[in-house]
Order: sequence, then C-alpha cells, then structure tokens
Amino acid sequence: MHYVVDLTWKPGTQAGVSAAEGRPDVDVSAPAELGGDGALWSPEHLLVASLQTCLMLTALYFIKRLNVTMLSYHSQTTGTMVKSPEGLRFTALQVAVNATVRAAADEAGLRQALEQAKKFCPVSAALSVPVTVSLTVLVAP
Amino acid sequence: MHYVVDLTWKPGTQAGVSAAEGRPDVDVSAPAELGGDGALWSPEHLLVASLQTCLMLTALYFIKRLNVTMLSYHSQTTGTMVKSPEGLRFTALQVAVNATVRAAADEAGLRQALEQAKKFCPVSAALSVPVTVSLTVLVAP
Repeated sequence: MHYVVDLTWKPGTQAGVSAAEGRPDVDVSAPAELGGDGALWSPEHLLVASLQTCLMLTALYFIKRLNVTMLSYHSQTTGTMVKSPEGLRFTALQVAVNATVRAAADEAGLRQALEQAKKFCPVSAALSVPVTVSLTVLVAP
Repeated sequence: MHYVVDLTWKPGTQAGVSAAEGRPDVDVSAPAELGGDGALWSPEHLLVASLQTCLMLTALYFIKRLNVTMLSYHSQTTGTMVKSPEGLRFTALQVAVNATVRAAADEAGLRQALEQAKKFCPVSAALSVPVTVSLTVLVAP
C-alpha cells in the first residue's frame, strides 16, 4: 500500500500546502514559537494527529471483533519536544482516551482493544519515541 | 514545547474530527482499502505530510543561513506500508524534492540545506522507518 502526499511551498513564507488526492488541502507551517504561522497545522501537530487517529481506528477494529458497545470516544494527545544538542527532538507522545461504553462488561473489552491497538497501529510502530496510552471509561448511566 | 491535538469519534463510523487550537479542523478516517472514507485524511497520509513538512521547514532554516536563493520548492512523499505478521507496518518513506534556484551556485547550498534538514528535522528523528530524500534542482533560466 502506498500513501502519497504533495507539498508546495509558498515562496517567501514559512508555509505551504499539503495535498492528497481527493482530500481537502491542508495549509501547513511551522509552529509559532519556531517562526511559523500558529494558525496553521504544523508537522508536530500532524504527527500527533496521525498517531492518535491510527490508535482510534485500530481500536475500532478490535472493539468490533470483541463485541464491545462503545458510545463515545475522545482522545487528547500531547507531543513533547525539547531542544537537544542534536536539534529539536520529540521525547514523549502521551495519548489520553476518554470513552463511554454501554455496560460495565464492555469496559474490559475496550481496555483490551486499546492495548491491541497500541501493538498493531502502524504509526505507533513507525515511531522510536515512547508512546503512552491512558484510558478513562465511563459506563453510560 | 508541547503539541496538543484532540480527536473526537463520530459514533457509528470509521471517522472522527481532529482539532488543534486556533487551526481549522481536519476530518479523518482510515484509508478506503482499510474500510474508511477515502475522501478524508488518514493517519498514513498525516504521517507522510508531517514528515515532508518538517523536512521543508527545516531546509528553509538552513537555506536562509546558507544564503541560498530558492524560487520554488515542491515535494512528493510516498509512504509504503505492508502487511506483516505483526500487523500493518511502514517499510519506507521516500521524499522526492523538486526545487528551482536562482543561480548554479545555489544548487550546492540547497543540497547541503536538505541534508542538514534530514539530520535535524524532529519528525524524521522520531521515526524508526528508513527515510530517503532525493533532490532535483532546476536553475532558473
């Protein structure tokens, strides 16, 4: 499988346009603290978005296989980057998931699905940075 | 430095919404061949976009330092993913850059800037997958 994305620089700026066939364009720039346009998606934000989307989609696959009834799923992921002698380096990617399930019995299945997701998601497997995943489950009242 | 992105699942679907403060939302899904909505950005496309944006922005930093006059820059990046016994795995990320410079003397500087970018870009450093970068330079006529 091949995933192809085009990037075109806007001359004279710290910004560009990302294009993937059939999808809306995404304007990109460096984060504001690195001299870019803070109103646009940065490589750092795209990496964080890629990881947590991969984890959710892989979890959905296992949730279905495990017959878990999930009503809602939200994650907030924080990428931490530091200045090192070798340049800017990510040191941690922390994913905090909040989900609602139908019944108490679904909670164990969801935990299992998310553990499997961390193992099988191709994006977390492609990263050399430590990824941590925490899960808070609410059983629908 | 911290980069925070939120992801909210659209219940009953293989899709969600990615939100990063102050930036336009990006709808996300799995690629079509993995059961998702092929009109939306996938984790695979986001990873590819993150890498090549990071490389371009880091190259721009060195281009300025090296006083290279660059008139245009475009890259097309292909992520290759295969099915393995451990699940889907990225095996290669190939970045093909096409750029135009003012004068022949700028070409060496651009090559140097892109080599430095590969070394110092925090996204390529965060990946365990081999990244290759090729550069085609045109000197403006």
